[in-house]
Amino acid sequence: MVTYDLNLGWIADEEAGESMAKAFDNLVYERQKGVAGYFDLPKSSKAIVAEVKEYAASNEAVRDCDSVVVIGIGGSSLGAKAVDTMLRHKYPDAKSLLFLENPDPVDLQTKLSLIDKRKSIFLVISKSGTTVETMSIFKALIAYLGIDLEGEDKERIVAITDEGSALYRFADHHGMKTYTIAHNVGGRFSVLSSVGIVPLTIAGYDTGSLLCGAAGMVDRFFDAKEDHLLLKAAFIAANWHRYRMNVLFAYGAFLEDFTKWYVQLWGESLGKIDRCGNRVGPTPLGHIGSVDQHSFLQLVVQGPRDKSVTFVKVEDFENSLKIPDIRLEYIQKCDYVNGHTFNELINAECDATKESLRNEGVPVDSVILDRIDESNIGELILYYELLTSLVGSMLHINTYDQPGVEKGKRILVEKFKKSR
Amino acid sequence: MVTYDLNLGWIADEEAGESMAKAFDNLVYERQKGVAGYFDLPKSSKAIVAEVKEYAASNEAVRDCDSVVVIGIGGSSLGAKAVDTMLRHKYPDAKSLLFLENPDPVDLQTKLSLIDKRKSIFLVISKSGTTVETMSIFKALIAYLGIDLEGEDKERIVAITDEGSALYRFADHHGMKTYTIAHNVGGRFSVLSSVGIVPLTIAGYDTGSLLCGAAGMVDRFFDAKEDHLLLKAAFIAANWHRYRMNVLFAYGAFLEDFTKWYVQLWGESLGKIDRCGNRVGPTPLGHIGSVDQHSFLQLVVQGPRDKSVTFVKVEDFENSLKIPDIRLEYIQKCDYVNGHTFNELINAECDATKESLRNEGVPVDSVILDRIDESNIGELILYYELLTSLVGSMLHINTYDQPGVEKGKRILVEKFKKSR
Repeated sequence: MVTYDLNLGWIADEEAGESMAKAFDNLVYERQKGVAGYFDLPKSSKAIVAEVKEYAASNEAVRDCDSVVVIGIGGSSLGAKAVDTMLRHKYPDAKSLLFLENPDPVDLQTKLSLIDKRKSIFLVISKSGTTVETMSIFKALIAYLGIDLEGEDKERIVAITDEGSALYRFADHHGMKTYTIAHNVGGRFSVLSSVGIVPLTIAGYDTGSLLCGAAGMVDRFFDAKEDHLLLKAAFIAANWHRYRMNVLFAYGAFLEDFTKWYVQLWGESLGKIDRCGNRVGPTPLGHIGSVDQHSFLQLVVQGPRDKSVTFVKVEDFENSLKIPDIRLEYIQKCDYVNGHTFNELINAECDATKESLRNEGVPVDSVILDRIDESNIGELILYYELLTSLVGSMLHINTYDQPGVEKGKRILVEKFKKSR
Repeated sequence: MVTYDLNLGWIADEEAGESMAKAFDNLVYERQKGVAGYFDLPKSSKAIVAEVKEYAASNEAVRDCDSVVVIGIGGSSLGAKAVDTMLRHKYPDAKSLLFLENPDPVDLQTKLSLIDKRKSIFLVISKSGTTVETMSIFKALIAYLGIDLEGEDKERIVAITDEGSALYRFADHHGMKTYTIAHNVGGRFSVLSSVGIVPLTIAGYDTGSLLCGAAGMVDRFFDAKEDHLLLKAAFIAANWHRYRMNVLFAYGAFLEDFTKWYVQLWGESLGKIDRCGNRVGPTPLGHIGSVDQHSFLQLVVQGPRDKSVTFVKVEDFENSLKIPDIRLEYIQKCDYVNGHTFNELINAECDATKESLRNEGVPVDSVILDRIDESNIGELILYYELLTSLVGSMLHINTYDQPGVEKGKRILVEKFKKSR
C-alpha cells in the first residue's frame, strides 16, 4: 500500500481547478490517441513477462546465466537499475544485474573485468539504436570478451530497441533475439516496457506484481481522478517560479537510484520551452535521509524559500536490527534511542525533519510505502509518470520530447570528424 | 596540475571589485584570527601523517588490518569517501575503506555482515561526540561483532573528535587511541584534518602529497589572490538570485562522491540568513557526465535560465581502453568514434556539452585536472573551500555554522522521549 500526504500550505483557486480539469482531460486524450504509450504498459507488458519467462526457460544461455549485463544509458538503464536497487536485498538469489552505462574508461574497464562471458547474457538497449555511448561500449564488450557475432555467442545477446531502428536491423541480420519498444513510449517512460521488464524478469523479480501495482494506479487515476495527484501537480505547475526546486528526500539507501530515475523523468520532461516561447520547468533534486540531513538540510531550512520537499518513507524495512541497550560512558546523551530499531530511528528522523520544515513554512508532502515490494514500486512509478504528464500539460509543453540535447550531439560528431 | 577556465559571460563592475577586495581581506582576517581553522591544515596536518604512519607501523592491529571501518556521517565521512573513490582505481592494494553512515537497517546490516573484526580497525568520528546516528551505529557494531571494550579489542578502535567532547572522554576512559579536531575546523571543512587524514593514511594513500597540493593552493591564494577564484565567487554572490543553482557536472564515475562532498560544503555553508535577516544562498547540484547528459541536460538547455554549470574534467584517465574499430552492420552511424579511446570520447562529450551550453548563454566554467592524483585532489579541495568562504563573505553570512538543523534534532529527541 502507498499513501500520499500533502502539507503544501496551498489551496487551489478557481484557475487551478480549471487547470486540473483540463490536465486530466488532456491525459485522457493522450491515452486515447496514443500521444504517450506508457499508460497502457501495465497491462500490455504482461505478455512480455510471460514470453520472457518462456524464453528464459527454453534458452540454455539465459537459464544458466548468473549475470545479466545491461548495455544502455539514460532511459535505457535508470528504470531497471532503480527497481533492482530497491529490491535486491529481498532477493539475494536473483541473478546479478550489471549496468554498463558511462563511457568512462576506468569505470568501464573495472566492470568489464567482472564479466564471465559463459555465465552472462547481454542486453543491448537503445531506443534509437544509434546511441553512441551504448554502441561504443557494446563494441568494447565484443572485443574484450571475444564475442563471436557469427557463432553461438549470439544466443547470449538480446537487443531491445524501436522496431526498424539500426539496432533492430543489426540484430535481425544476425538472427538475434529482439524485443521492441513502442514508438510512443519515450526512454524515460519506458521502465515498464521491454526496456525494464526484460532484464528484471530474467533476473528473477516478480515483474507481474510490478505491473499489477502500476495498473492499479492507472485505473484509479482514470476512474477516480486521484485528487491528491492533481492537486500536487497543480501546486507544482502554479508555483514553479517560486518553488524552483523539488527535493525528493528519500529515507533509505536503496532509494538512491530511484531518485536518479525521478531526476531524469522530471528534468527531461518538464525543462522545456512552452507554447508561448517561455523557458519553464521546476528542477528535480534527489537526496537520501538521514545522511543528507547532515549535508543539504541547512540550506532548505535557512536558505531561500525556493524549494518544495517530497519525503519518501518506507514504514516497514522488514528488518529488526536494533540499537542495543548499551551505555557508553560519557555518551549517555545518545541513549534515548537505545532498544529501538534502526527502522524506528530512520523513520523518526524523517518525521522530525518533515515537521521542522513544515514549521518553517516549507511546502512538504510524503509518499509512504508500507513496505518495499513490487506492487508498491509499480504504483510509485506510475504515480511519478502521471504526475509528470499532469505538470507538463499544465505548463503547456511537450512532455515527451527532448530537443535541447541535440545540439551537443551534433557538436560531438563535428569534433570527431574534424580530428580525422 | 589544475587549470581553471571561466566563461561566465559576466564582467565584474566596480561594486563587485570592492566586494572581491573585501572578501579577500576578510579571509586574511579569518585566517589570522582563527575564525576558521582549515586554511592551515595543509601544513599542520603533516605532523598527523607522520604520527599515523608511525602508529600504523608499531600497532599490530592497524598494520595487519585489511579494512578500515569509518563510523561517521556528514562531514565525518564525505571528505575521506570522496578522496577514496577518486583514488581507489590507482591503488588496488590500498586497505579497503568501509563507511557506516546511514542508520538504514538494510544498508547497515549488509555492511556489518562484510566486516571481519580480526581484520579491521574502527574509526569512530564525530566532532561533537554525540551524533546520534554515529553512536547508535557504533553500539550496533559493538553488539554485532562482540567487541569487548575492556579487552584487547580496544586496540582496534580509534576515536576522532573535538578535544573534551563526550566521545573524547569515553575514549580516554577506555585508554583508546584518539585524534582531535581543532575547534575552529567545522565538519564540512575537516577532510584535511585528522577526520580525513587518519583513515586515508592508514588505507595507504599518499596523504603527504594531498596536503602538498592543498598547501600550494592556499599559498597562491594568499600570496597572489588567484583572480579566477575571486571572480567566480563574485559572480556566484552577485547573481545567486538569478542563477539559483550551480551544477557541478563532473565527467567520470569516480567523481560522484566528490560532488556529494561539494553539495554538503556549499549547501551547509551558504544556505543561511544573512546579517540583514534575508534568506540567501545558491543551491549546489551534482551530476555525472556523460550519463546525466541523458537525464538532466535537457532542463539546463531549454528550461529556465536559473543555473550556472561548472564542469570538472580529467584530461588523462591514464587508461588506454579503446572503442575498437568494429563495424556493426546498420549501425555505421556510430563508427565516427572507432579507434579513439574512451578517454577521448568522454572528454569530447564534456567539451561538446560545454560548448552547447555556452552557445545558449548559460554561464559555464571548468576545473580541469591534468590527471587524478593526490596533489591535484588536494588543490581541488582547497579551491572549493576557499570559494565557499569567499562567497559566504560576499553574502554577509556566517559560513561556518549550521543553526538550521538544530530544530529537527530537538523534535527527534522529543519523539523518542514521548514514546517512553
